[in-house]
Amino acid sequence: MKLLLDISYVGTAYHGYQVQPGLSTVQGTLQKALEDFYGVPLMLTGCSRTDAGVHARQFCLTVEGDLFENMPPEKLPLAMVSRLPGDISVNSAVRVDDTFHARYDVKYKEYEYLILNSPLPDPFFKDRAWHCPVPLDTGLMNAAAGYFTGKHDFAAVMAAGSAVNSTVREIYGFDCRREGKLVIIRVSADGFLYNMVRIMSGTLVQAGGRKIEPRCVKEILESHDRTRAGETLPPEGLYLNRVVYK
Amino acid sequence: MKLLLDISYVGTAYHGYQVQPGLSTVQGTLQKALEDFYGVPLMLTGCSRTDAGVHARQFCLTVEGDLFENMPPEKLPLAMVSRLPGDISVNSAVRVDDTFHARYDVKYKEYEYLILNSPLPDPFFKDRAWHCPVPLDTGLMNAAAGYFTGKHDFAAVMAAGSAVNSTVREIYGFDCRREGKLVIIRVSADGFLYNMVRIMSGTLVQAGGRKIEPRCVKEILESHDRTRAGETLPPEGLYLNRVVYK
Repeated sequence: MKLLLDISYVGTAYHGYQVQPGLSTVQGTLQKALEDFYGVPLMLTGCSRTDAGVHARQFCLTVEGDLFENMPPEKLPLAMVSRLPGDISVNSAVRVDDTFHARYDVKYKEYEYLILNSPLPDPFFKDRAWHCPVPLDTGLMNAAAGYFTGKHDFAAVMAAGSAVNSTVREIYGFDCRREGKLVIIRVSADGFLYNMVRIMSGTLVQAGGRKIEPRCVKEILESHDRTRAGETLPPEGLYLNRVVYK
Repeated sequence: MKLLLDISYVGTAYHGYQVQPGLSTVQGTLQKALEDFYGVPLMLTGCSRTDAGVHARQFCLTVEGDLFENMPPEKLPLAMVSRLPGDISVNSAVRVDDTFHARYDVKYKEYEYLILNSPLPDPFFKDRAWHCPVPLDTGLMNAAAGYFTGKHDFAAVMAAGSAVNSTVREIYGFDCRREGKLVIIRVSADGFLYNMVRIMSGTLVQAGGRKIEPRCVKEILESHDRTRAGETLPPEGLYLNRVVYK
């Protein structure tokens, strides 16, 4: 029996989603809570990995094993409340076909990157947004985002040393907006390379701060050279926002 | 020389605002940072006290001592960024007359109480709102708030055992609204008794959950009996929102 779970977490206290021996991870915490509840070993498959300090408003994973056939899966979220720390929640659980794959069946994912763009930091955004005191022009950032949109080879905005078969991805939507002191970058794609959102956001910040022209993004992408793109912004501003399946 | 500081803090990590020997407090943390910066002992006087776990979007205090006469006070917020932990910020600093008093010269204060009113908890509101899974009717809560508004003896909604000269206060505004999963209670008054906002919010929750009729608030106030009012809601939902001086 296979269940698809929709979860949220604040990533601050975790060394990322993926299990790592001896470290506190979202997957490890969730796996222990689920195995304690069901009393059997379970296999968890996530839609993605997230790095230490990265948050998720919606992260999806499948749970496989000898689950209670007679318990409606929609009862699982409430059963998990007392078994999970307050920074992880199970929002929904539904039964899926055994052939369903949490990672391979993703149609697209959406991320947000939150920048606190004000001269002074704000305690309520500590660990929840990256603080950038330099004023950013969202018009220029949107112009830069436009050059990233579409199907491209994104090798230039992938962390150096990553091993993947292909660095071609398709970005469906990429924009940024100001909401009070926040600049919110939102991007959706069929897939993301390692650190791709944080490097693209760093490149948008260069454009928004008038360090580069928006049209430089075209040359950066064509160079396939990681050193041409902006810096990898810190993890605390990154949110996995939505996972949509085929 | 006396400065008036406007600060914000997330109260989760602190045993309240007020200095307590051997405990981590907002005042203690701020005093140390300021005394390290100015190199002299300073006297801090706060507009109020806040309990452990209570937050402040705006808290005001005065700082007195042998301050740098030649440093414009508006430079202090930025100077404090690297000296304070990320959950406390100094938002502004202005020079005030020596006769100004941070507590006695308050015209009114405004608090908010945040309730996450949804069946399941939300990791992003952990320690930032009180989770109430029972559906609340904000219409009934507003009706109850109406009976609290105005000048009354608020003895019934003060924590038992508090010592004050008078339990008469005037509430200028008191309402609640729903924003998505949140119910936000907002109240302003010339002063508040100990735990008054948390007990009034607990009473509004009783009305919103149809445990009492809104008009019962009138009888509760007239009884002067703490046991007639609702429970003291937990500190994590409470925010000191605004302090206005005469």
